[in-house]
Amino acid sequence: MLSEEHHDILIKFGKHLQALRLKQNLSLRKLAMNCNIDHADVKKYENGELNMTLISLTELSKGLSIPLKELMDF
Amino acid sequence: MLSEEHHDILIKFGKHLQALRLKQNLSLRKLAMNCNIDHADVKKYENGELNMTLISLTELSKGLSIPLKELMDF
Repeated sequence: MLSEEHHDILIKFGKHLQALRLKQNLSLRKLAMNCNIDHADVKKYENGELNMTLISLTELSKGLSIPLKELMDF
Repeated sequence: MLSEEHHDILIKFGKHLQALRLKQNLSLRKLAMNCNIDHADVKKYENGELNMTLISLTELSKGLSIPLKELMDF
């Protein structure tokens, strides 16, 4: 079970991820295809429902063509 | 099973984490205590053996008193 503080971190990251995706006019499916992650999982990331791993984060940064540290600047 | 590429990412991150810890003269146990993570797991992170989660990464950045994006700049 995640603490409330941890849950808030996931929510905050999810909003940041969504903003980065929309800034590039990428659909959920297109981003998911770019980074080999199921689009249902990308949706859960954006909703703060999943505590993703470092490898998934690196895949997301590749799918968005941005440096990992920019993805993690939230 | 992680791909070789993903395994290399974990190894690279582990070395970065260790360098950040040693730069602050922190022992494994002290860093582990700072961030409420088992020191055996911190050791595995440094050895590239564990694909840690976003929440563990935020705890590590707190334990090192550095911004998350600095921890992820590797």
